[in-house]
Amino acid sequence: MHEQINFAIEILGTISFSMSGSFAAMQKRLDPFGVLIIAFVTSVGGGTVRDLLLDVPVFWMHDLLLCGVILVTCIFSMIFKSIEKNFKVTLFIFDSFGLGLFTLIGVQKGLNADIHPLICIGLGTITGCFGGIIRDILLNRIPLIFRKEIYASACIIGGATFLLLTTFTNLSYTVIQVFTILLIVTIRTLAVKYQWQMPKFYGYVNDSEM
Amino acid sequence: MHEQINFAIEILGTISFSMSGSFAAMQKRLDPFGVLIIAFVTSVGGGTVRDLLLDVPVFWMHDLLLCGVILVTCIFSMIFKSIEKNFKVTLFIFDSFGLGLFTLIGVQKGLNADIHPLICIGLGTITGCFGGIIRDILLNRIPLIFRKEIYASACIIGGATFLLLTTFTNLSYTVIQVFTILLIVTIRTLAVKYQWQMPKFYGYVNDSEM
Amino acid sequence: MHEQINFAIEILGTISFSMSGSFAAMQKRLDPFGVLIIAFVTSVGGGTVRDLLLDVPVFWMHDLLLCGVILVTCIFSMIFKSIEKNFKVTLFIFDSFGLGLFTLIGVQKGLNADIHPLICIGLGTITGCFGGIIRDILLNRIPLIFRKEIYASACIIGGATFLLLTTFTNLSYTVIQVFTILLIVTIRTLAVKYQWQMPKFYGYVNDSEM
Repeated sequence: MHEQINFAIEILGTISFSMSGSFAAMQKRLDPFGVLIIAFVTSVGGGTVRDLLLDVPVFWMHDLLLCGVILVTCIFSMIFKSIEKNFKVTLFIFDSFGLGLFTLIGVQKGLNADIHPLICIGLGTITGCFGGIIRDILLNRIPLIFRKEIYASACIIGGATFLLLTTFTNLSYTVIQVFTILLIVTIRTLAVKYQWQMPKFYGYVNDSEM
Repeated sequence: MHEQINFAIEILGTISFSMSGSFAAMQKRLDPFGVLIIAFVTSVGGGTVRDLLLDVPVFWMHDLLLCGVILVTCIFSMIFKSIEKNFKVTLFIFDSFGLGLFTLIGVQKGLNADIHPLICIGLGTITGCFGGIIRDILLNRIPLIFRKEIYASACIIGGATFLLLTTFTNLSYTVIQVFTILLIVTIRTLAVKYQWQMPKFYGYVNDSEM
Repeated sequence: MHEQINFAIEILGTISFSMSGSFAAMQKRLDPFGVLIIAFVTSVGGGTVRDLLLDVPVFWMHDLLLCGVILVTCIFSMIFKSIEKNFKVTLFIFDSFGLGLFTLIGVQKGLNADIHPLICIGLGTITGCFGGIIRDILLNRIPLIFRKEIYASACIIGGATFLLLTTFTNLSYTVIQVFTILLIVTIRTLAVKYQWQMPKFYGYVNDSEM
């Protein structure tokens, strides 16, 4: 049951990341194969970098189901371009849950490989964020981490909370997992709704140096 | 004999990719070592990403001949800058054959590593296209996959045809290889000659969102 | 004693690269977690690419001290933004020594993995330069290798000198190491002071093609 929920959320997260990549590529007027490449990179980019760093087999290389899901999502997105408008809220929710679960998977894969917990927070952040960063670089857009929304911050806070809870509380693993994902989703949602920004406590910046 | 032809085409493809990188870097007025770095990345970038994903030894790390070919081609390109104009057609043919053979090598390396054939098409496309994508990112140009010419599409169609022929026909391996390479070269050539574009069957795009 | 000096310079080089990443990210007005990500990538990017190519464990994955140094440097840089102005020369010296030592580490790691010496020069250059290149790509700046200062060239010349001295002289290893680092620092310093540029011996460039 527990595994099935994780699996379902991972598929939903992949679908959402694939849609976000497809829509971004269509806005840039790429041809269908270009759209497919961007959808693919957005979905698997973060996990690929994580697996390369950990020197474990890259997760999608033997996962035909996952590749098929990305392909079908991409074709679906190209045919029903207009869903972007009608399902914007749904897509945002998928994306947030995907971000939460991808972060969690990254932290756990790192812990399984005996990496120090603090470095595992970085691996979780990479898993959640790097797909979008690579997408933006390929599309020549201003990368994700520039934007004002709290995104990487949600991953870092979520990953740190997960580690604190597993270390210092006796809560069951499942409860902590669910709590972490919901925390990341909540931070993302509130940040977008109320236009939260991280404080920048460093003073002035000399723009002429840019 | 068969091996020697493959080897010759691989060297010609490497020379062509190295030239394409050198010329692009010289247009951006990089210094000679910068030109060399770009030539190198263009030639080996795609195969490097493929080998990292497959977790096999990176192909050029022990191939001094290949590295020497890139170096000599790069120096040659810098000295005889003007060849770009005179040999434009020759360069285009080399580049197309290189693309075809690199795609084929990517698909075959994936099959040898027991990767599912459909994912191998992706590995072939990565081998053929990612060198040019990395070159364009480093040079701050609009990446290859944006351009209107059919490029990644030729790799995907070529890779798929190769797999269909090996699975459903009794043709000899060599014949299928030659046919695949010629197919990719033909698609590329016709696409450039007649300015083919992939149809974009998704409707309007709101440019203001870009 | 010898090991301790290497260790101290490596830490100073990491601090300097981390500062350079932090300041570049603050100029682009990233939020604190974005600044941290850029500082991290700048410090470890080059060595990470090298270790992935060599298929050896990625050096920072088990090095909590190094990750801690980057974190502390980054926080320090955000709080004392103004040090950039006052310590510009100090930072430049750190950066040059870091570049020299990182190049040397790259060459040596390659030699230890039985890579051909000429390819090891490339690994040294990657170790020294790729962190800054990835930083610039993420920040959407014109990448490092475009700039007029001699940077990659210093790595290539330093790496080649190191190999020539170890092969053709009987000097002690330590002397050669120190000489190589000082050579790279000297080239960088003189290049910046006298605005050296590499000669571009290829003729005119048709800018309209850019």
